[in-house]
Amino acid sequence: MTSQSILFQQRLKSNAESVEAMLAGLLSAGLQAGEIARPERLLAAVRHGALNGGKRLRPFLVIEAAALFGEGPASSAVRVGAALECVHCYSLVHDDLPAMDDDDLRRGQPTVHVAYDEATAILAGDTLLTLAFDIIAAPETVLTDRIKTELVLALARAAGIGGMAGGQALDLAAEKNAPGEAGIVTLQAMKTGALIRFACEAGAIVADADAEARGLLRRYGETVGLAFQLADDLLDLTADAQTMGKATGKDMARGKGTLVALKGQDWAERRLNELAAEAETLLAPFGERAGILVETARFVANRRS
Amino acid sequence: MTSQSILFQQRLKSNAESVEAMLAGLLSAGLQAGEIARPERLLAAVRHGALNGGKRLRPFLVIEAAALFGEGPASSAVRVGAALECVHCYSLVHDDLPAMDDDDLRRGQPTVHVAYDEATAILAGDTLLTLAFDIIAAPETVLTDRIKTELVLALARAAGIGGMAGGQALDLAAEKNAPGEAGIVTLQAMKTGALIRFACEAGAIVADADAEARGLLRRYGETVGLAFQLADDLLDLTADAQTMGKATGKDMARGKGTLVALKGQDWAERRLNELAAEAETLLAPFGERAGILVETARFVANRRS
Repeated sequence: MTSQSILFQQRLKSNAESVEAMLAGLLSAGLQAGEIARPERLLAAVRHGALNGGKRLRPFLVIEAAALFGEGPASSAVRVGAALECVHCYSLVHDDLPAMDDDDLRRGQPTVHVAYDEATAILAGDTLLTLAFDIIAAPETVLTDRIKTELVLALARAAGIGGMAGGQALDLAAEKNAPGEAGIVTLQAMKTGALIRFACEAGAIVADADAEARGLLRRYGETVGLAFQLADDLLDLTADAQTMGKATGKDMARGKGTLVALKGQDWAERRLNELAAEAETLLAPFGERAGILVETARFVANRRS
Repeated sequence: MTSQSILFQQRLKSNAESVEAMLAGLLSAGLQAGEIARPERLLAAVRHGALNGGKRLRPFLVIEAAALFGEGPASSAVRVGAALECVHCYSLVHDDLPAMDDDDLRRGQPTVHVAYDEATAILAGDTLLTLAFDIIAAPETVLTDRIKTELVLALARAAGIGGMAGGQALDLAAEKNAPGEAGIVTLQAMKTGALIRFACEAGAIVADADAEARGLLRRYGETVGLAFQLADDLLDLTADAQTMGKATGKDMARGKGTLVALKGQDWAERRLNELAAEAETLLAPFGERAGILVETARFVANRRS
């Protein structure tokens, strides 16, 4: 490992710990202003869905993108990252439901509707989505109201019908009618790309960066999102190749097209290298400070788990 | 009908038309900034869930509470009302799901999961909840960022685990373990009370009213919320009495306690009159201007549909 990648791993771990602690605090039994009671079973289900020890890649991107502009109010970046992670976790809880992808396990644990019940899982997802906007707007997030408003709007757009929720709808439709290349690109840009792009742009918003820097981080986020999805599809195929003894075809066979399935593994590996290089080019204006985000793009492109 | 109640009915109708038009515009196929595409089927399901011609009581309360403080930016109050209605409609779409209350019909139309499918209904609810915060934060809502931030926070608290979503969790639990009087009061204050209270307080926030006025509208909202729920429970019983030929017992029998079931119909009718009078007293400092909101409390307490 290079010193840059060791630093990256350390920062990934320490940021994940900050976000985990922040989420655990937000999901405690204590009432916030304006709340009447926090029903125990729902709270437990929400905690099950949110405190699952993930890599917390999206909050990491918020925090490190904000850090690009100097020290800044780090705890606010952690809070915005935690808000974004609530949206990500809500989407996992709902996507796992029987009516959606019907998954029983996530990260080796029973999914929320298995550990509790379907109704509670639906409400747990709703609660996490609502909480995301609570966290951004709360007084404890020390940002100007202008910045909070921008964050609320950008997060709602990234998560809504033109972003993640719409992407999940396209994904459900793709099981019946396999989309072509353009359709896959749109689906992935919405389903996984929109939140990752928001993560990077949110860092710039938190730091009140100028429009040019914000635009660069937005494009960096799009590039990382593309790499994230492509690596995911490749991983799906590779893991499959090892266990099933055949290299291609599973995704095609079940009618869920991926770019890897359409264009092949070699193309995907070349494209991942290109995307990591593009991310580096986009960050060049920020100089050495951007080292950690350059390394992040490499990590996302090369990840094998 | 008194002239006051005729005016009330006219305003209820004209406000509902404004909100309906606002929602129809927001739920059109046109992309907003930051959106990639709006999947057709999901958009149709969202429209089915939101454009259902309801009374739009919650937006009405926002608009009329704001109007108490002068003309103000009426279109912003309509937008905030539309945002709140999105939250209300999302809760109906999710509550109707098979895993929740399993209802096939709402306002004489098939519920969203019946007209489309469960997965799409889950996503349609998620989309409406997300859209609520989009609407408040969007530039088209001409309010200061401070006011927008206050609205986002208050709405998230009213809708979250300490408010509506938590109330629905308590309601699910109540089917297994019938709560006592205190439990019913908490459940109802959260499940239906929190959004109605928010509606009235939001009017004051939109108008940037002082803390005292805001407190009065908050208490007015609590009073209207209590009356709304009590009238609902009474209506449930009365409708039942007509069709079933017995006056009491259905709610108790199915284990879902209501205050009417616990304390009787006479008590409920007396209490509704008290609540309407309390609402009037709370609004006395606002003078004649508050006539429409006084009438609203009477309407809510006396409604028989």
